[in-house]
Amino acid sequence: MVDPCRQPAIDSSLAAAQAELSGLFGDRLCLSQAVREQHANTTTWMAATPPDVVAFPRSTDDVQQAVRICARHRVPIIAFGTGTSFEGHVNAPFGGLCLDLREMNRVIEVHAADFDYVVEPGITRKQLNDMLRDQGLFFPVDPGADASLGGMASTRASGTTAVRYGTMKDNVLALKAVLPSGELVVTSRRARKSSAGYDLTRLFVGAEGTLGVITELTLKLHGIPEAISAGVCPFPSIEACCETAIAAIQSGIPMARVELLDEMQVRVCNAYSKLCMPERPHLFLEFHGSEASVAEQAERFGAIAGDLGGGPFEWAPRPEDRARLWQARHDVFWALRSYRAGAKVVVSDVCVPISRLAECVRETKRDIERSGLIAPMVGHVGDGNFHASVLVMMENLDEVARTKAFLDRIAERSLAMDGTCTGEHGIGEGKKHFMVAEHGRDAVDLMVAIKRAIDPDMIMNPGKIV
Amino acid sequence: MVDPCRQPAIDSSLAAAQAELSGLFGDRLCLSQAVREQHANTTTWMAATPPDVVAFPRSTDDVQQAVRICARHRVPIIAFGTGTSFEGHVNAPFGGLCLDLREMNRVIEVHAADFDYVVEPGITRKQLNDMLRDQGLFFPVDPGADASLGGMASTRASGTTAVRYGTMKDNVLALKAVLPSGELVVTSRRARKSSAGYDLTRLFVGAEGTLGVITELTLKLHGIPEAISAGVCPFPSIEACCETAIAAIQSGIPMARVELLDEMQVRVCNAYSKLCMPERPHLFLEFHGSEASVAEQAERFGAIAGDLGGGPFEWAPRPEDRARLWQARHDVFWALRSYRAGAKVVVSDVCVPISRLAECVRETKRDIERSGLIAPMVGHVGDGNFHASVLVMMENLDEVARTKAFLDRIAERSLAMDGTCTGEHGIGEGKKHFMVAEHGRDAVDLMVAIKRAIDPDMIMNPGKIV
Repeated sequence: MVDPCRQPAIDSSLAAAQAELSGLFGDRLCLSQAVREQHANTTTWMAATPPDVVAFPRSTDDVQQAVRICARHRVPIIAFGTGTSFEGHVNAPFGGLCLDLREMNRVIEVHAADFDYVVEPGITRKQLNDMLRDQGLFFPVDPGADASLGGMASTRASGTTAVRYGTMKDNVLALKAVLPSGELVVTSRRARKSSAGYDLTRLFVGAEGTLGVITELTLKLHGIPEAISAGVCPFPSIEACCETAIAAIQSGIPMARVELLDEMQVRVCNAYSKLCMPERPHLFLEFHGSEASVAEQAERFGAIAGDLGGGPFEWAPRPEDRARLWQARHDVFWALRSYRAGAKVVVSDVCVPISRLAECVRETKRDIERSGLIAPMVGHVGDGNFHASVLVMMENLDEVARTKAFLDRIAERSLAMDGTCTGEHGIGEGKKHFMVAEHGRDAVDLMVAIKRAIDPDMIMNPGKIV
Repeated sequence: MVDPCRQPAIDSSLAAAQAELSGLFGDRLCLSQAVREQHANTTTWMAATPPDVVAFPRSTDDVQQAVRICARHRVPIIAFGTGTSFEGHVNAPFGGLCLDLREMNRVIEVHAADFDYVVEPGITRKQLNDMLRDQGLFFPVDPGADASLGGMASTRASGTTAVRYGTMKDNVLALKAVLPSGELVVTSRRARKSSAGYDLTRLFVGAEGTLGVITELTLKLHGIPEAISAGVCPFPSIEACCETAIAAIQSGIPMARVELLDEMQVRVCNAYSKLCMPERPHLFLEFHGSEASVAEQAERFGAIAGDLGGGPFEWAPRPEDRARLWQARHDVFWALRSYRAGAKVVVSDVCVPISRLAECVRETKRDIERSGLIAPMVGHVGDGNFHASVLVMMENLDEVARTKAFLDRIAERSLAMDGTCTGEHGIGEGKKHFMVAEHGRDAVDLMVAIKRAIDPDMIMNPGKIV
């Protein structure tokens, strides 16, 4: 929603800021309608609210100077990575300056022996992993989209490998951020652990750009496993999928990925990615380790799956088969977009304790049916996290209303099971109304107190989280 | 150092607070000199500064009421677990109320299927693990001392298993904390991951009681591995130990523990724990996994150690041998205390990127020799973290001066290598003077801003961290 106060407040200060920003950025400052619209929110169903201007900084110094200019004139600043977030994170409801960090995509320091790299925030995960491959290293966090690392850190992203390698919270060792004052803070050094004061790294990871602009990240890397094996396994029901994943985790199998696709999602993927899986619920699996350990993990998993009615397992032993499989998983969003022509994809993102997962998925499935919605489901079931993606015709107001009601119910269902309304997509604009229900008034007030202490003029990505 | 302003300020407000606290706690409020001194700092060389009164709350409600009383009268509050911290965390330089949480040591909720337990902060890690054993679960963080979980969270503790299982930052899923206002915040729900707003959990983990009093913790548990094997391996030099640990990590062996003891520490342990290891640098090792995986890990490690001149490996196949070995490692502090009669043990705690570890350990060893100090070394070398423990006769002022200069140098050495002055012991009073050198002025100012926003009257463990 555009704040009614916006235009007067912004207009008065923006003109002065814009002149100074123009001096700083020259032709790297864009005011064209097309560029501004590209930098509004593109992958959600929420209305796009473009920024007033877009700049393309090339250095931390550029960012600091831009922030100082904006701070003087109280102009909002929205950091922009690749624009692949789902919850309106890069919308500019109060206007302001969008800092598109795509040109800040360098690797700054290489510490292969320490398994860490220092990178700029605009580098994407595929760019990074392409560079790492020769070193025998990889960065494991994989949200599907080829997102920027700065954006992934800001939304505390995770994805398919979190069950084994953790989320961005676990894989950012340190970062640099420009505060609303223009000062630059370094949150930590490169030691693997430290107990030296407040955990500033984790304060910025997940803050969605509301406390400062991240200009550098020190990332934890992992050795490319000696052996990787992957496969798909059909199950008679979605509950059997969940129960198999839970049993496998409880038995200690260190799965690298364990992804649920319900039967409708399988149909969608078959159509888009030219696969021919039976139209039943599936788990997609990946195991990492030594040759012997991978074989043992797969064997143990197969036994558990068999006990719960799953199978037969189909292995993808060759790297190209594996790549095709995971590409299909990663293309889910685009497959959904093309499945129902003209529909928007509205992705929910709840996460519950795994003991409640099968129940939560089953109730959600029933809810989808009762609501008359089209909503295939995928899930990072090892974490208890799943997405029902509603395909909505936005001109059908009744369908939109049913979708909104469904989104509220799925969040409430998750909260009632001690889960969260968002496992990995963040709050942005889209889930602010769940914050008090999830955290309680006092915790939200504490977040507001932190926000005010760091950003008293509320210039950093206003209108998000709190 | 006792602040010269302390007595008048405290005296005026303490009397009124004490009357109210007495009404709340009855005979669970202690003013005796002996009890107060027990609650000053006991395991460091810093001067003990006891609190004015000690209370033993039994519930979150007790803590909330006590905090509200203290807040009204601006009386400092120091949360106390087992008093095993090294950096003066429980000292009361401004006097005030010590909240000894030993009676808050219950398990509140058991979620074995989700691998989490909700506990009160006074439970110790041994108490917890004794309870978990029947469920086939364990809590991995192991700082050696039988510390309370609340204290471990507050100092962001880690220890021997962090190389595999992470630190308290990674193993606390959520917590409840009483803020200086008396309000209770719940930092997160039980879902394994969430991106719903600022990471309040990580804000309190490592905050050393300066932002609030933790009254409940939701802990991540792990399945007891199917197989555990442990052993010791001597090396020709301390560098060979470090290089072996580094090579093993880089080759992807998921070691559960990899601990360095230098030759002097081996001598100390032999004497105290009745072992008969050769007086050379050793690595203590532990592998967790399936039978096959543990055997493979050990074999790979042995090959690397052999290449670097280590061996022969001595295995401790029986649980009782393994327990004896790790008990010796855990008893290092007490072994040191008894090694030089009358000496204080002054433990340093630097952590560097592992590529710099061998160099940092070597330079530190030379520094110890040049300084004429007695300082055995142990290290969680998989993390790049090691402790030189100086045995100091406090009445020898020259030796004390040399020790202080050594502590400054080891911190500076670590910082110059992009490391931290404290890997796991925290800042407390003892390392405040390194904060700006480690983090920079702007990051420390940011910590101060957070502290002021949450605790404007500075009543929560004043004089620590910032």
